[in-house]
Amino acid sequence: MTTETEEKALRYRRAQSVSKAEEITEQEKKVRKLQLDKPVHIPRDSLFSWSSEFNNFTGLVNWGFLMLSVGGLRLGLENFLKYGLRVNPLEWLIVLTGYNEGDRSQYPSVILIIFSIVPVVVSLLLEKGIAVDLLPEKFGIILQLSNMLFMVLLPIAVLHTKGNDFSFVGITTVCMLYLVIFLKLWSYVQTNYWCRLGLKKKYLDNKLRRQSLSAPNWKSKEDLINDTPAAARLTKYPDNLNLKDLSYFMLAPTLCYELNYPRTARIRKRFVIKRVLELFFGINLALALFQQWMIPTITNSVETFATMDPIRITERLLKLAVPNHLIWLCFFYLCFHSFLNLMGELLQFADRKFYEDWWNANNISVFWSTWNMPVHMWAVRHVYKPITGLGFSKFNAGIVVFAISALFHEYLVSVPLQMFRIWAFLGMMAQPPLAIISRHAEIRLGPRWGNLMVWSSLILGQPLAIMMYYHDYAMLHFKPTQEVP
Amino acid sequence: MTTETEEKALRYRRAQSVSKAEEITEQEKKVRKLQLDKPVHIPRDSLFSWSSEFNNFTGLVNWGFLMLSVGGLRLGLENFLKYGLRVNPLEWLIVLTGYNEGDRSQYPSVILIIFSIVPVVVSLLLEKGIAVDLLPEKFGIILQLSNMLFMVLLPIAVLHTKGNDFSFVGITTVCMLYLVIFLKLWSYVQTNYWCRLGLKKKYLDNKLRRQSLSAPNWKSKEDLINDTPAAARLTKYPDNLNLKDLSYFMLAPTLCYELNYPRTARIRKRFVIKRVLELFFGINLALALFQQWMIPTITNSVETFATMDPIRITERLLKLAVPNHLIWLCFFYLCFHSFLNLMGELLQFADRKFYEDWWNANNISVFWSTWNMPVHMWAVRHVYKPITGLGFSKFNAGIVVFAISALFHEYLVSVPLQMFRIWAFLGMMAQPPLAIISRHAEIRLGPRWGNLMVWSSLILGQPLAIMMYYHDYAMLHFKPTQEVP
Repeated sequence: MTTETEEKALRYRRAQSVSKAEEITEQEKKVRKLQLDKPVHIPRDSLFSWSSEFNNFTGLVNWGFLMLSVGGLRLGLENFLKYGLRVNPLEWLIVLTGYNEGDRSQYPSVILIIFSIVPVVVSLLLEKGIAVDLLPEKFGIILQLSNMLFMVLLPIAVLHTKGNDFSFVGITTVCMLYLVIFLKLWSYVQTNYWCRLGLKKKYLDNKLRRQSLSAPNWKSKEDLINDTPAAARLTKYPDNLNLKDLSYFMLAPTLCYELNYPRTARIRKRFVIKRVLELFFGINLALALFQQWMIPTITNSVETFATMDPIRITERLLKLAVPNHLIWLCFFYLCFHSFLNLMGELLQFADRKFYEDWWNANNISVFWSTWNMPVHMWAVRHVYKPITGLGFSKFNAGIVVFAISALFHEYLVSVPLQMFRIWAFLGMMAQPPLAIISRHAEIRLGPRWGNLMVWSSLILGQPLAIMMYYHDYAMLHFKPTQEVP
Repeated sequence: MTTETEEKALRYRRAQSVSKAEEITEQEKKVRKLQLDKPVHIPRDSLFSWSSEFNNFTGLVNWGFLMLSVGGLRLGLENFLKYGLRVNPLEWLIVLTGYNEGDRSQYPSVILIIFSIVPVVVSLLLEKGIAVDLLPEKFGIILQLSNMLFMVLLPIAVLHTKGNDFSFVGITTVCMLYLVIFLKLWSYVQTNYWCRLGLKKKYLDNKLRRQSLSAPNWKSKEDLINDTPAAARLTKYPDNLNLKDLSYFMLAPTLCYELNYPRTARIRKRFVIKRVLELFFGINLALALFQQWMIPTITNSVETFATMDPIRITERLLKLAVPNHLIWLCFFYLCFHSFLNLMGELLQFADRKFYEDWWNANNISVFWSTWNMPVHMWAVRHVYKPITGLGFSKFNAGIVVFAISALFHEYLVSVPLQMFRIWAFLGMMAQPPLAIISRHAEIRLGPRWGNLMVWSSLILGQPLAIMMYYHDYAMLHFKPTQEVP
C-alpha cells in the first residue's frame, strides 16, 4: 500500500516537472507544511490534461471485454425471449444427407462423396502409365487435366439433372470435397512432373559431365549427399506411385504433394482426445448459433433488403455481422486448428502450420497469406512460383492467384445455390485493390489502422456478400418473403 | 517483407526447439532440400498449441474495439428506427426551472439556489464572532452546526410544503448544491478551529519555554521559518475571515478549506475555451443519450420488474446497464475533468487532482479512493484522520467514512424522489464487504480479476439501484404503468 502511494507520488512529481502549474520553491513548501490549517493541496494537473503525460489505460481493455460480455449476454437473452429455443442438432443430419419424410431418400450427397474415390484412382493409374512409358508424357498430362476437369464439373451436372434431391448443406459439402481433391490432384500431377523433369535433367547433366571429364565414375556433390543413410531412407520417384502413398496424401492435412513428409514419432492420445472434444462441442456451438441467431436474422432481413432503405439495410447488416463473424471464428478454429491438427496427429504428419497470426495482420495481403496456410502454400508452390518462373512479374502472378481463388469461391457458392451470380468472384477480386489501400493505411496512419481495416473488411464484408446472395436466392425461390414469427 | 519472414522463421525455429514434433537432423534437412519434388513442409506446431509458446494477440484489442463499435452503431440505429428522434434540448430548461404552461411559474429551485448564500454568510459572521471573542468558542461551534443542519434540512422542509412546484432535476440540483456547501462549511469551521487550537498551543508552548529557559527572546525553529519572506506572503488566522476569502473557497473546485491555496501564474485562454466547448457538447450528448436511450428503456422495464421473471429482469438490467454506464462516463468526464478544471483555471487554483486513474483500480477500495478526489480528500482530512487521531482503528474510521458517504447518497436520492427507501444507503454500505472480496480476488486471481470486479460492480450495480428506485417510484405514482409506444 505504501509503495503504491509512493509510486503515485513519484508519477505526480514527474508530471509536475513538465506542468504549466506554477512551481513552488522548497522554502515555500516547508513554510506551508508548518501552517496551522493542515494544507493538503499542491499544484498538479489532472490526468486527462496533456501536460500530465499520463497514459496508463490498461484497465480500459477489461472495460471493453466486460461491455462486450454484457452486450452479448443481453443479445442472447433477447434472442431467446423472442424466438424461444430453435436449436435442433438432429435437423443437421437430415439437411446433410438430403433425407426427408417423403420420397427424397436417395442420399445423393453421400453417393457423390463415395464416388470421389474414382477420379483419384484414375489419376494414380494415369501417373503410373506415364512412369512406365505406357503413355506419352504430354498425352498423359492432357488425360490428367481432363480427369480433374470432369471431377469438378460432375457436381454441376448431377445437380442439374437431380437438383431437387439435394440439400443445400449436402451439395456444399460435396463441392468443398471435390475442390479439395482437385487441388490435391493438381499438386500430385505437377510434383510428379517435376520429378520426371529433374531425373531427365540429372541424367543428361551427369552424362555430359562424364563425357567432358572423361571420368566414368564421376559423382556430383548432390550424388554424394544422396548416398548418405539419411537419403537412403527417402522414397524416390517412381517408387511413390502406389495407392498407399496417394491415400496418405489424400487424407493428410495439406494440399501440397511431397514424396517424403516430415513425420512425428508417435500419436499423442491426450492431444487426439482434446481435438475430438473440441470438434464435438465446437460444431454444436456453431450450429446452435446458426439456427438460433443467424437464420432468424437473415430471414427477417430479406424484406428490408428489398425496400432499399439505406438506414434499415445498414441496421440489418450490422445485426447480421455479429453472429456471422462469431460463427466464422468458430469455423476457423474448428477447421484449421481442431480438425487439421486431429488429422495431422492421427497420420503423424509433423507440419502443423495451418495458419499464422492473421489476427495481427496489418494489411489485407498479409491476412490472405496467413489465415489459410494450406491454400496459401499450394498457391505459392503451384501457381505463383511457376508463373514467376516463366518470367512474369510478381504483381501479375499475384493477380492470377487471386483470380483462381475468386473462381474457387464462386464455385463453392454458385453451385450449391444453383445461381450463377458473380458476387463471390467480385468480392475476391476486390481484395487486391483493398490490399493496396490497407497497405497505404498501414504506412500513413500506422499498423493499428491497417489491422482495423483488415478486421472491418472481415466483419462487414462477409455479411454483405451473404445478404446479396440470400436476397437473390429468396427473390428467386419464394417471392412473397416468409417471416419468422 | 524479407525481414518480416525472417522474423517469423526465427519464431518458428524457437517454437520448434520446445516442440514435441520430431527433430530432424541437419543432414536430413540438406538431403530433403535436394529432392526433386520441391518440398515445402517442415515439422512445426500450430500457433494455438501450447507447445508453440505463441502469445501475441494484440490484434484482438482492435477486434474488441470494432465489435463494440459495430454493436453500438446497430443499437443506435435500432433505437432510432423504433423510437424516432426524442432529443429535445429545450425540454431540460423547463425541467430544471420547474416552469410549466400552467400556474407552476415560481422557479422554486432557482430561489433555493440563490438562498444558499444566506447560511454561508451566517457561517462567516459566526466565525468572526468567535475570532473576536464575541461568542464563546463552544457556543459558537454549536451555532455553526445548527446553521449547517438547518441548511441541509431546508430543501426537505420546502419540498414537504410546496412539493408540487418542484421539478425532479431542479430539486436534485438544489440537494447537490446544499450538500456541497454543507461539506465546505464543515471544512471551513473545522479548519478555523484547528487554527485557533494551534495558536493557543503555540502561545502556551512559547510562554512555557521562555519561562524555563529564562530567555525572553527565545524563538523556536518554526518561528524562524515563519519569519522568512515566503511565510510573510501567507495569510494567517484570523486575517482569513473575510467575504472575499470565503467566496473564493465556495467557488474553488475543492471541499477542503485552506488559508493559502497553491495558485497558477495566469489563466490559459485556450484551456478555458476547450473546457467550455467540452461542457457544451458533452452535456448535450449526455442529455441526448438520456432522452433517446435511457428513458424508453426504463419506462419499458417497469412492468417487467413487477412480473419478477428472473430471465426478463436480467435482460432488462443488461439493456439498461449500457446506456447508464455511458452516461455515467460522460458525467464523470464533464464533472471531474471539464467543469472542475474550468473552475480551477478561472480561479487560478493550481491543484487539479480531481481524480486519479480509477479505471486501473484493482480493488473496490482503490476505486473509491481515486474516482472522486475532492470528496476523498475531504473524508480523509475531516473524518478519517480526526477519528484515527482520537485513537480509533483505521478499519473503524473507514466504516464511519462509508457510513457518512452512504447517508449523503441516500440524501441525494431520497429527497428528490420524496421516497425514503434505503437502497442507496445499502448500496454504499455494501461497498466495504465488496472491497474485501475484490481485494481477495486481486490477491488470489491476479490484478486483472480485481479490475474486472471493479468494472462489473460499476456497470451492473448502478442500473440495479436505479431500477429498484424507479420501480418503487412508478408503483407509487402511476399504478397502471405507462408504456412508450
